[in-house]
Amino acid sequence: MATYLITGSSRGLGLELVTQLAALPSAQVGRIFATTRSEPSAALTNLVDGSSGRVVRVELDTCDKTSVTNASTEVAKILHADDTGLDVLINNAGTMPVTPDGIETMDNLTETFQANVTATHHVIAAFLPLLRKGSQQKVFNISTTLGSMTMAPRYSIMPVPAYKVSKAALNMLTVQYALSLEKEGFTFITISPGWLRTDMGNMFGIEADLPVAAGASAVLEAVHKYGKEDNGKYYNIRVAGWEKNEGLNQYDGLSPPW
Amino acid sequence: MATYLITGSSRGLGLELVTQLAALPSAQVGRIFATTRSEPSAALTNLVDGSSGRVVRVELDTCDKTSVTNASTEVAKILHADDTGLDVLINNAGTMPVTPDGIETMDNLTETFQANVTATHHVIAAFLPLLRKGSQQKVFNISTTLGSMTMAPRYSIMPVPAYKVSKAALNMLTVQYALSLEKEGFTFITISPGWLRTDMGNMFGIEADLPVAAGASAVLEAVHKYGKEDNGKYYNIRVAGWEKNEGLNQYDGLSPPW
Ligand SMILES: NC(=O)c1ccc[n+]([C@@H]2O[C@H](COP(=O)([O-])OP(=O)(O)OC[C@H]3O[C@@H](n4cnc5c(N)ncnc54)[C@H](OP(=O)(O)O)[C@@H]3O)[C@@H](O)[C@H]2O)c1
Ligand SMILES: NC(=O)c1ccc[n+]([C@@H]2O[C@H](COP(=O)([O-])OP(=O)(O)OC[C@H]3O[C@@H](n4cnc5c(N)ncnc54)[C@H](OP(=O)(O)O)[C@@H]3O)[C@@H](O)[C@H]2O)c1
Repeated sequence: MATYLITGSSRGLGLELVTQLAALPSAQVGRIFATTRSEPSAALTNLVDGSSGRVVRVELDTCDKTSVTNASTEVAKILHADDTGLDVLINNAGTMPVTPDGIETMDNLTETFQANVTATHHVIAAFLPLLRKGSQQKVFNISTTLGSMTMAPRYSIMPVPAYKVSKAALNMLTVQYALSLEKEGFTFITISPGWLRTDMGNMFGIEADLPVAAGASAVLEAVHKYGKEDNGKYYNIRVAGWEKNEGLNQYDGLSPPW
Repeated sequence: MATYLITGSSRGLGLELVTQLAALPSAQVGRIFATTRSEPSAALTNLVDGSSGRVVRVELDTCDKTSVTNASTEVAKILHADDTGLDVLINNAGTMPVTPDGIETMDNLTETFQANVTATHHVIAAFLPLLRKGSQQKVFNISTTLGSMTMAPRYSIMPVPAYKVSKAALNMLTVQYALSLEKEGFTFITISPGWLRTDMGNMFGIEADLPVAAGASAVLEAVHKYGKEDNGKYYNIRVAGWEKNEGLNQYDGLSPPW
């Protein structure tokens, strides 16, 4: 029975991760903390209401340190009462601003880094004490192959340079945490969830590769599968049927090049 | 006759790059803009005074957008009078704060990113119009192998996680600029200058591998050698005699893994 916390759970991938976890037997999944920065969406509220207290909505603006601290205090109280720790933290919240007029006009680099990297760092740091009390010590950071330097030519048409820089940095943050906490038995993974039909994935008006459910279930498969031996690794999700995707299979479950 | 601008020229690698450029014949090197955020050091002042106007000191705090704009206006005036553009920009200014008590206590991630990445972006963007008027279109970003995800285990003992994350991000910024400006004939390179005996290199009280002169001359060799075919690449400097450096030659002039 593992406990989970997922950031950015009102919509998109975060909401779907919570939905799928809540559908699993309680012998497998215990308390699920679904965090959102503002009022929960109707979909999340329904999920919470139908979960008999298993899904707990917690307010958490990842960019606001006080909010992060308050959320960790709130979660600590509940887990303490349950006499357990936090097993899995999924850092899903993220933002992808567009720079339409060329990289030299990019005016959101620091803010995007703050939201996608520093915010993730603050969440990890705040929940480390609870993760240390857990039995799995797993942290999954939701990254993207757009953060791969090697694959950058393939994505050069996508006008989101601040996002690409921030996700490359998130990959390095993951590696640094992995090396620092390896001795304590932690598993830090940075994973590309696939191109999904969410608000973010649909931003350019082209249909994304995968329904969000396919991405979420593949991410959860990875959460189950990977352990200490994989600490510090960068992974694609694994989805069957994509072997011939323009010569490059992004859904092969292997490690993309950095 | 190429014109150069180097940021962070009061001391360390920046000062040595200016010193070596100023020693080259004026048929090879024209105007050298040596920028510093505060009053120039005595060493730089001497260099300026002995250069018959060739070395021009310009005030430029890379973290202050107004200062960056003012510097580009000042440089533009001089280059306009010379009837030429800027050929080579070397983004050297950088900072490496220490996080002694474990990555979870890191409290300077955004500031370090701002100083090492966003500041570099602002300098590149401000000087692009002058680089477009130049004849070489070369931008060298001074990075480090500490910014390599692949090599991270080797450097795990060094308690500078914010620096490592920022330099991985600087590598991605370089790749993004390279892809964006390739068609205009630009060359963007991210280069590791070696472990040098500067204030930064000596920070941990262990003698660094190389005298700063060796690092600077190897960087200038790279500036001469690499052109459009190398756009977007990550390079080690090349220094002879390091073939047996613990099985890994950091000074082989090849591309480190990202
Ligand atoms: N969709 C794709 O194709 C794709 C591909 C690769 C990677 N990813 C990554 O997958 C993750 C989820 O993406 P998505 O497609 O579900 O995006 P989305 O539909 O745009 O949803 C983003 C989520 O992040 C939350 N969020 C943003 N800033 C936040 C903050 N400061 N505090 C708390 N929550 C915040 C949003 O909350 P609000 O509802 O309050 O705005 C929302 O729940 C992101 O990290 C993204 O980079 C997505
Ligand atoms: N030394 C090494 O072993 C080593 C190894 C790999 C990479 N590097 C890289 O090489 C570059 C130069 O390093 P170094 O060893 O010469 O370091 P250093 O001795 O610490 O000098 C740093 C330089 O950057 C300037 N600087 C910092 N912030 C600035 C800002 N906001 N605006 C303008 N200038 C600023 C400093 O100016 P002030 O004098 O005003 O403080 C100084 O001139 C850095 O990018 C560093 O990351 C060094």
